[in-house]
Formats: sequence, structure tokens, C-alpha cells
Amino acid sequence: MFAEIITIGDELLIGQVIDTNSAWMGQELNKIGIEVLRIVSIRDRKEEITEAIDSAMKRANIVLVTGGLGPTKDDITKQTLCEYFHTELVFNEDVYENIKRVLAGKIPMNALNKSQAMVPKDCTVINNPIGSASVSWFERGDKVLVSMPGVPQEMTAVMKESVLSKLQERFQTDVIIHQTFLVQHYPESVLAEKLEPWETALPECIKLAYLPKPGIIRLRLTGRGNDKVKLVNILNREKVKLEEILGDDIFSEEDTPLEMIVGDLLKKKKLTVSTAESCTGGSIAARLTSISGSSEYFNGGIVAYSNDVKMGLLHVSSETLAQHGAVSEETVIEMVKGAMKALKTDCAVATSGIAGPNGGTPEKPVGTVWIAAGYKNEIRTYKQETNRGRAMNIERAGNNALLMLRDLLK
Amino acid sequence: MFAEIITIGDELLIGQVIDTNSAWMGQELNKIGIEVLRIVSIRDRKEEITEAIDSAMKRANIVLVTGGLGPTKDDITKQTLCEYFHTELVFNEDVYENIKRVLAGKIPMNALNKSQAMVPKDCTVINNPIGSASVSWFERGDKVLVSMPGVPQEMTAVMKESVLSKLQERFQTDVIIHQTFLVQHYPESVLAEKLEPWETALPECIKLAYLPKPGIIRLRLTGRGNDKVKLVNILNREKVKLEEILGDDIFSEEDTPLEMIVGDLLKKKKLTVSTAESCTGGSIAARLTSISGSSEYFNGGIVAYSNDVKMGLLHVSSETLAQHGAVSEETVIEMVKGAMKALKTDCAVATSGIAGPNGGTPEKPVGTVWIAAGYKNEIRTYKQETNRGRAMNIERAGNNALLMLRDLLK
Repeated sequence: MFAEIITIGDELLIGQVIDTNSAWMGQELNKIGIEVLRIVSIRDRKEEITEAIDSAMKRANIVLVTGGLGPTKDDITKQTLCEYFHTELVFNEDVYENIKRVLAGKIPMNALNKSQAMVPKDCTVINNPIGSASVSWFERGDKVLVSMPGVPQEMTAVMKESVLSKLQERFQTDVIIHQTFLVQHYPESVLAEKLEPWETALPECIKLAYLPKPGIIRLRLTGRGNDKVKLVNILNREKVKLEEILGDDIFSEEDTPLEMIVGDLLKKKKLTVSTAESCTGGSIAARLTSISGSSEYFNGGIVAYSNDVKMGLLHVSSETLAQHGAVSEETVIEMVKGAMKALKTDCAVATSGIAGPNGGTPEKPVGTVWIAAGYKNEIRTYKQETNRGRAMNIERAGNNALLMLRDLLK
Repeated sequence: MFAEIITIGDELLIGQVIDTNSAWMGQELNKIGIEVLRIVSIRDRKEEITEAIDSAMKRANIVLVTGGLGPTKDDITKQTLCEYFHTELVFNEDVYENIKRVLAGKIPMNALNKSQAMVPKDCTVINNPIGSASVSWFERGDKVLVSMPGVPQEMTAVMKESVLSKLQERFQTDVIIHQTFLVQHYPESVLAEKLEPWETALPECIKLAYLPKPGIIRLRLTGRGNDKVKLVNILNREKVKLEEILGDDIFSEEDTPLEMIVGDLLKKKKLTVSTAESCTGGSIAARLTSISGSSEYFNGGIVAYSNDVKMGLLHVSSETLAQHGAVSEETVIEMVKGAMKALKTDCAVATSGIAGPNGGTPEKPVGTVWIAAGYKNEIRTYKQETNRGRAMNIERAGNNALLMLRDLLK
């Protein structure tokens, strides 16, 4: 069963907004055996919307459209769909009541909000539980087109509450299984060379893909077929072979964020953690606390951007800073010790580096980051090198710090 | 002048990777007067790549393709392009030397890396300054297709170093001007109602769009034409009218991240800032330090997730915590004072709330966040309500904290 996704909005084409909806939809559709063939982003123009919808309806069984349903003039998806499906907009009392409910206590109802109760006549209308733009479900022959709001929380809410289950009822779907392995310690080409004999021998129904991230490679095995039990067996057989080849370099068999892997480990071992961050600026703490329930193991962190803070709150000695500099193994060791002490935790990570683009020296060029992970009396350090730009240097340092902590706790 | 972007890779369709390349390319192309008509993401399948390229070549003058150039088997873009353009892969000594240079000191050269020196014969090859996949520039009649690596840093590097300037030399481009206004204090529909008379009277060549973010609405005016001076004049006239209608609710006339707006203000006023974060978990510090040069005004921050840390490092009194709870106006006031004192800064922001999905009570439901901004002896507080999911609650609290600090410093 094949779907196409069409996201509508000038903001996507001029690059003001990144399309995150499609990736989320792709994941959810895959889980129920619907494969996404194509994602198309187009402008708010009638002819372009019509052309994209028409091509998609020819190629796919299911067309999911997001965006262009706002109360403002630039949004024209609803009108365009009416023309395409030869229907018209009519006032829907039920949708109007829902809009009143959604807006209650937040903003006063005005004519623009009221206009959102005008919906296509010949379609099934689904109420939006958290927004004022409703969902339109059109049928043509054996194909379905669903138009949804573009605001990510609203789209995910309507998908989860009704669209996904309605699609499952409506279509008989194939089995698609993805399994992702997170691998450390390898550049992509070296890993590919090591895996080549195994990859070449993979059965037809299994596909392998490489997805590198800073400091991590994600290996994805995808199985497709109509017999779930058989497919699971084949996948498991290949999984065992892969584990034999890579051993401990596979640090996860799910595509789980590192902060969640580390969090689960801390929870299991009943340990607490803290952070002492210079160049990563709080991003490791932000990642750890992005996980619901992290208060169980994360006490807190210190973002020690200035040397004063490194000395004052983390008790890094002024001699160490003077002799070795803020970006040094000695400093991150004192930072990690300082964090465990000041924040009273069993373990901690620390970073200090030159994220760039400025601030490098011949001895310590931009991209140099010292990282430490500590657990009780054991401290490990790592010097990250090569500059990949400020944001990537920071992300990679965070990945390395969390991987080091995980290895230390294992 | 019109372009289409084609991003290739199964990972995009199954939602494992979010396509961030297209937005970046859209922004850069707009700056040089090239409008993006459509963004298409497709799988690593020969027929699908060929079909997408062929349709795009019919619609647009310029087709930019990213992805599918890795050394691994799943990547087939190069071979597919050769078939489409009736050419073949040949070994290129120059590209081989570049690959050796790029990999030097990082990983050993192997057969897979060497295969990346095989490039299409009938095209202009452009070296990749930071990676092993080169760029192929094809010409057919008056149209151009450029195939680039999909790794974001490599794509941006080749675009900045050569592709953008080569496109400018090759094509005569129209003038496109975007101006974005950041507006606070309005729900979208209320703002739209207020702006309706002005919007209706906008000249043909100017388009208005609404782009809501948590707590902020971005208003974008886009002008298109062939006479730059004339277009700028028309845009300026409309800008003045908009400023008259919205006054101080416009807090920026550029689509600048809030952390940069606040950073610029701090630099201008020669002030320092710190953060005391509970529910935002370090994300405000991470946002402030994502800006290069932030060490000039950001001393550091304390992520006080546990009450112990709130008391120990920020000196929140145990009485306050016992009497009012961690999520209270009283607590964030003490946190913001504690941050200014402990981190020795002129101003600070503090947050404490229930990010969710768990931990809510009838009095303090999930989504409740108390925020404080302090500057010397003046402290302002705000209670953020309504739950929009953990990630959004955190992002919105960060936006509100930074907006409050900006207002306080103005």
C-alpha cells in the first residue's frame, strides 16, 4: 500500500520553515504497513496544488495533504480541493461548535475563525481536537485523500486520534519492518567495507542503509513482505550475523536518542548524573531533560562559560586554568569532579572546547573539544578534533560525552 | 528563474531523517533571485529518480539534487544520472586526489572511497572541499541539473563555495525580496483581523504570509519584480503602514532567532546574563550559546532540576519551596536573584514548571510554567499556561523568558 505526502506553504519553499511533518507521518505510516513513495512540498498556488494532487492520486493509493487551512488569505487548500473534487464549501454546525470549544478561554471568536466552519460538502469531516482547522477525508474510486492542518501538533493530534486508525480500517496493508542498529567507532566507508560480504549475501526482501550522524552511524535493516512471522525470522537471522561481526560496537538495537539510552541505564542502575558544560553551553543538560521522567536521575548542571564560573561553582583551580588553559584535559577532569561534588551525583560529564567559528589558535584550533566522563573515582577523557562548524561541533561533543558515560557505566 | 529541489534517500521517506537541506537551499536561492517551485523527496530507486528528474527538468530551469552519492550500495544517484544524460562513469584523477586529501589523517583509503573518484563523463565535476562525494553539474539545452552530496555540511559547503556563484553567472535572475516581522502578544486570527484592511489594499507584487511559532507570529512580506529600486520603495511604504498598525508589538524586523536579538541587545548595553533553569533544562543556555560570540555576555547558567540544587546553588529558601512549591512565582523570583548573584551577572532569566506529560496536579496542571526575568533590582514574572506537549512547552517557555528579558532591557 503506497502513500504520498503533499505539504503546502510558501514558507517551506523559501526555506523559512523546515518540513518536519513529513518525517513524522512517514514513521507512523510505516508502522501500519503503508509505504511513503514521495514527499512533495509546493507553494500556495491553485494550479500547483491541483497538479500535485492529481499526479499523486495517479501514483498512490493514499494522498495525505497538510497545510493551507489557516484562517488567513494566503491559505487556499480548502477551496482548491473543492474545485478538484467538484464540490463546494458549506457551513458545518458541528465544526463551528468544535471551533468555539477549542478557542474558549483563549481568544475571542471572530469572522475569520468562523469561516473555518465552512468545509467541503462531499467529504467526511473530522474535527480537530486542539485547533480550528478541520480535517477533510475525500474518497475517489479506491483512493483516499486526506487534508489536514499544517501546524505540527494539530497534524499529529488528528493523525493519532483518527486518521491512522481510519486508514488501517480502509486498506489492507503489507508488512514493513525496520530495525536500526546504532554503531560507534567507525567511519562510514570502513564500516561498509567490513560489512560488504554480509550485505551482498542479504536475501532479496531485506535492504540495508547507512545513516551517519556526528560520531555515530545508524544501520537500518528493512524487511518487506506479506508474511509477518516469516519476515521476522529472516530479519532475526541477519541480526544475529550482524551482531557477530560488530560485537560491542553496536551500542543500541533501536533508533533511540542517546540521551534516552543513557537515561534508561542510569534508571536501571539507580544512579544520578550532572553536567558541567562549557562549549556545549547547556545542550547536554537540555538533551538529558528532554526525556520525560529525567528528574529521577538528573539533578542538575552547571553551564560554566566563563573561567570565573569554572572556578567559582565547579572549583577548577586557577593554577590549572593558567597552566593548561580552559580547553585542556586537566580542566575537564576538574570540571567533572566539581560537578559530581557540587550537584551531589554519582556520575557526570564535562566539556570544554572551541566551538568556533572564532577563537582558535595554532595549538588549539577551532573544533578542539576536551570531554570527560566520571563515575565515582573513575574518569575518562577524550579529545575531539576536526572542525565541522559550530552547531555540529557542539552536537558531536554531546554525542561523545554521552557515549563515554554509557561505556563507563556498562 | 525557477528551481526545483530533489532530495534522494529512503531515510527521508520512512521518516528517519528530516530534510533540512531543502530549507537551507530555498533560503540561499531566494537571496540570488531564484525561486523554488517544488521540493520532492524520493526513494533510492532508479525509476523513481529518473521520473522525478525528468518532470523537474520540464518545469524548472534549474534542478538541484542532493543525496545518494555515498560509497555504499544503497546509493545509486550517480549511475542513474549517467543513464538519464546518456553518459558513463569514468575515473577522475583530480577527484581522486581530492578524496585522498579529504580523508588524510582521518580514515584509511579503501576500495569504496576510491570508487567515489568514478564520476560522470559528460558533466562539469566540482570537488567537495570537506567530503569524498563530488558534485556533478549537467547542462541540457538552457537547463542545468546539479547533483550534490546529501550530508548537510557538505551540501552547504559546495553550494557556498561554488554552486551558488556558478548559478548566478549562468542565469539572469528576477528580484525577490522577503521581509519578516516578528510579532508578540497576538493569536493568529486576532492579528489577521486587525491587519485585514491593510492586507486587502496591498499592491499585486506584494504577498503577506503568517507563520506562527510558540508565543510568536512571524509576518512575512514578499515582493517580486524586475526593478529592484521600485520594489524596495513599495515594500518600504507597506512596512511603514504595518509599523503604524502594530507599534511595539513588532519586536524584530528580521527573521532573527530570539537568542540573537537578546544577545545583540546585551552586547550593545554591555551587560552580562545568566540562566537558572528547572523545566527548560538548560535549553535557554544552549540557545544563548548557540550564537557565536556569546561568551561576551553569557557567563553561565545553573540547571536546577532538583530542589537540592535550587537551594544549594541558587539559594532558594527551603521555606519558599515548602510553602509555595517549586513551580511558583516566589521560587522563580528567588531563582533569578540567585542566578544573578551566583553567576555575577547584570541580568538573568529563570523557569520552573511542569513540562509533562506527567507530574501535573489539579492546582498546577501540566503546562504550567513560572518564568522570571531580572535586571538589577527589577524582576518581572509570568505564568505560562495551557499544555502543548513537553517539547513545545519547553520551547515556548524559552521564547517567553527571552521576550521578557528583552522587554525588561529595552
